[in-house]
Amino acid sequence: MEDYLKQREQLITEDRAQRVDSARMQSLTHIEQKAESIVRAIRAAEAVSVWGVNGTTIFDYLPDDKSPNVFPGMAFLTARNIAVHTQLFQILSRMPKGALLHAHLDATVKARVLLKLALEQPAMHVRAANRITPNNLRATLPEFKALPQDQWTSLASLTEDSYVPNEYVPLHKARQNFDQSLGGPEAFDDWVVSALEINPSEAYGTHNTTAKIWAKFTSTFMVSGNLCHFLPLWRKYVREFLLSSVDDGISYVEPRINFWYKYMTGADGQENVTHRECLVAFDEVLNEVKAELKRQGREDEFVGAKIIYTTLRMDQGDNVEWYLEDCLALKKEFPHLIAGFDLVGHEDSLKPLTDYIEPLTKFKARQKELGLDIPLLLHAGETLGDGSAADMNLYDAILLGTKRIGHGYSLVKHPKLMEICKEKTIALEVCPISNEVLRLTTSMPMHPLPIMINHGLPVALSSDDPSAWGSTGLTYDFYQVLVSTEVSGLITMGELARDSIKYSCLEDAEKERALALYEKQWLKFTEWVVHEYSAASADGTRKMPN
Amino acid sequence: MEDYLKQREQLITEDRAQRVDSARMQSLTHIEQKAESIVRAIRAAEAVSVWGVNGTTIFDYLPDDKSPNVFPGMAFLTARNIAVHTQLFQILSRMPKGALLHAHLDATVKARVLLKLALEQPAMHVRAANRITPNNLRATLPEFKALPQDQWTSLASLTEDSYVPNEYVPLHKARQNFDQSLGGPEAFDDWVVSALEINPSEAYGTHNTTAKIWAKFTSTFMVSGNLCHFLPLWRKYVREFLLSSVDDGISYVEPRINFWYKYMTGADGQENVTHRECLVAFDEVLNEVKAELKRQGREDEFVGAKIIYTTLRMDQGDNVEWYLEDCLALKKEFPHLIAGFDLVGHEDSLKPLTDYIEPLTKFKARQKELGLDIPLLLHAGETLGDGSAADMNLYDAILLGTKRIGHGYSLVKHPKLMEICKEKTIALEVCPISNEVLRLTTSMPMHPLPIMINHGLPVALSSDDPSAWGSTGLTYDFYQVLVSTEVSGLITMGELARDSIKYSCLEDAEKERALALYEKQWLKFTEWVVHEYSAASADGTRKMPN
Repeated sequence: MEDYLKQREQLITEDRAQRVDSARMQSLTHIEQKAESIVRAIRAAEAVSVWGVNGTTIFDYLPDDKSPNVFPGMAFLTARNIAVHTQLFQILSRMPKGALLHAHLDATVKARVLLKLALEQPAMHVRAANRITPNNLRATLPEFKALPQDQWTSLASLTEDSYVPNEYVPLHKARQNFDQSLGGPEAFDDWVVSALEINPSEAYGTHNTTAKIWAKFTSTFMVSGNLCHFLPLWRKYVREFLLSSVDDGISYVEPRINFWYKYMTGADGQENVTHRECLVAFDEVLNEVKAELKRQGREDEFVGAKIIYTTLRMDQGDNVEWYLEDCLALKKEFPHLIAGFDLVGHEDSLKPLTDYIEPLTKFKARQKELGLDIPLLLHAGETLGDGSAADMNLYDAILLGTKRIGHGYSLVKHPKLMEICKEKTIALEVCPISNEVLRLTTSMPMHPLPIMINHGLPVALSSDDPSAWGSTGLTYDFYQVLVSTEVSGLITMGELARDSIKYSCLEDAEKERALALYEKQWLKFTEWVVHEYSAASADGTRKMPN
Repeated sequence: MEDYLKQREQLITEDRAQRVDSARMQSLTHIEQKAESIVRAIRAAEAVSVWGVNGTTIFDYLPDDKSPNVFPGMAFLTARNIAVHTQLFQILSRMPKGALLHAHLDATVKARVLLKLALEQPAMHVRAANRITPNNLRATLPEFKALPQDQWTSLASLTEDSYVPNEYVPLHKARQNFDQSLGGPEAFDDWVVSALEINPSEAYGTHNTTAKIWAKFTSTFMVSGNLCHFLPLWRKYVREFLLSSVDDGISYVEPRINFWYKYMTGADGQENVTHRECLVAFDEVLNEVKAELKRQGREDEFVGAKIIYTTLRMDQGDNVEWYLEDCLALKKEFPHLIAGFDLVGHEDSLKPLTDYIEPLTKFKARQKELGLDIPLLLHAGETLGDGSAADMNLYDAILLGTKRIGHGYSLVKHPKLMEICKEKTIALEVCPISNEVLRLTTSMPMHPLPIMINHGLPVALSSDDPSAWGSTGLTYDFYQVLVSTEVSGLITMGELARDSIKYSCLEDAEKERALALYEKQWLKFTEWVVHEYSAASADGTRKMPN
């Protein structure tokens, strides 16, 4: 028996040797050991007290079971309001998260906050395809537009009898006069929010397939785009994104910005703001935020931000080459701001990467000519397909030399590509909640992340489009991951956070600084965990799993 | 570009080199090539016409989408009645399936057939914990029992006012007099069937977690056990299992028989039939079936059957050693019938394999003493856990020298164990539909099978407990697998079928014969596909995926 247990221990060690935490687990500080135990004990206790684990045994069959179908790592849109009240969530919200490497800017600020920002803009108007009534409220989408001052209207409401379909109403008026029979201004807010977020009845009911939920998801961008892409609002949006990220413990961000729209709307209501002007604005906001944090003595919490230039995987009048040249020009002028290039959108239905081999190859040649370096950071394998075009995108992303892979959800089906990703340290930007809401998985325990981690694939946890799932920051993603495993613990989460910095597009010196700052934050955080939760978990502490 | 495509081709080839079909795909006969193309064309056409692929684009958002959430490989209990009407299903139902290596005998015969067999037995009675009324029908389970003749009752109904709770009513009477207000005899049948099967509203609604659905699942065994474990009925049950398997194209079966109950009920209604007598009966039925098939000129369709001796992973008065000794004694007397040993039940809640290391080690020593060879065929990793006890069972199954792994669902999380399984050819008995109904995955595209296949893990597709999901045989499992991939095709399915024979517990000579017979069946089958479907798919044929 002793022999057997020794053999067993060794087999487990070999099996887990490639994990991101395998080295560190051998050399934990006393504080780290304590923090790890505390978090494991809290997780185990909350698995029972919050998520009902062991609440049903196999002999408890009741034909009309009315107890909720809850479990750790369950469907996020249903779990969210339970999760936020847990100790584990409170702890993770304080954890330093490192870098956010995969997030689409237009879906990073909470819907209600975006609406608040929009209400501050007198130019912002809203219209609907019909007068809003209780019967059509759910089926009608708001359409926003910032108008030039000479087109501002004096209409008062989307709900009164006299409303002419598709006429713009000033946003604050439309809200203020939203009919009381519909619920008044608060119902207006809910209506807008429901157009910007995916709700559980859609994801888990009416739109419960990847294709259908993507239709809803795309519609949220159509609604939000017309709010965000108004420069005065956009500046505040970027600011809000940066500050809320820092508040969530994120020290560096690489948002993907969609430059498909060639112009943004300016303060004068004209669609004439160039991509260059957007970058100038972004840089200004970024510097303001840095200055502000410095004034607050928080400069160590934020290293900065760089932009991933993206356009859509679709045909347009101009082909992708216009965007590639645009990206080159921007990189030349703002070398510190442009992190890389990506093609985005629903892989299952839009154009495959094979359609872009020539322009992207040329793009690399042009960089050489111009002495620039713009890594590709391509979405690939965000799909359930096995050999489908979206799954095959992984071959092309890797052959095209992508620096990281956006999602790479289906990568675990590809042994050779896994080998290459490990050898070349091509990190996967894994977005757990996004994958679940967009129906690639129905819960975290079914997500391939543990496969990736155990096989030693480089991973950076990311949020993708948090506003669409009613969240912001990275705490939620870390939470869903941490509750769905008994192998990984707090130390693992810390290693994933460090890796997100390591796999970022920061320059070497910046990266070194970011990693050094991370260690300071980590020490402070683990000390806080031990100080705050030692007593509480003293009785809950249990043997660590093997 | 040409260079790129050459590189791409090579990368794909390397990535897929470990697949079960990689060698064969290089040397297809003309007939196989044609059959493969036909099946791929039909699959592609039915993906659209049956499963609505491409029916929604990302721009088709409708807030109140009423279209069904269908897609290829979707939840089986909902898909079943759609699938059976497809051409692909018709084709697969004719495909030779090789061996069935993972099926629990008590859940292999359709519920309605079992009920029919039970109605033929005058000794069979049924009772309920209360008089059945419309209000409690759904919440009450039928309890069956074969009674000794002196205890047969003359009660007439479970539904009449005078029914005293827990009094036994002769089965045929209970059915015949089931109150018309409840729906009469047909409603009785539905009531029994719903206690023997998992229905979609349970799996996908009220019991939509692994823990809860296992509670329902276990209850089906409690209901069926009292029907099956009556020797006169059991003989007919075994016969039905064997014949329906052969009809489904299965040429060899290794059912797991649960010997947890030490005695079966005999024709006299006494619980005194020993395990030895069960095996004698099994052998007799097996020989009858063989003789019958021979009379029909079908002897080449069936190689035979061996039993996997199983008991439950639970404590009982006697410990597991009683069963191990019992298994040894049976193997000694029926060496041709006992294929191996397994411990079964819900891994997430029952005892882990670590509790059985000593007895199982001793079991091996005892085999040596007695000159016997009883391979372990252990369930392990039938779980969503990541480092949970059920997931850790994989380490023990392998260290204990298991010949195959029952399920191994979580094996893909274990790089070292994957290596060992490939090296030692430890096959995974993968049960796609079972995994989905029991909520390890919510659809086939989310199932890890493509990961297993692409990594070259040895796999045998199995049905587990088909009667619980209203199916029999292996056609359904092959169907769900085949519609959920664009890499695998008919040839892959054939290779999986051949492998099931290869990984069986047949003796070498038997195995050789079975494989030779398979090739005859395969040739006939592929010729039939080409003959039957060439014209139909002529216009649907499309380029094979890479």
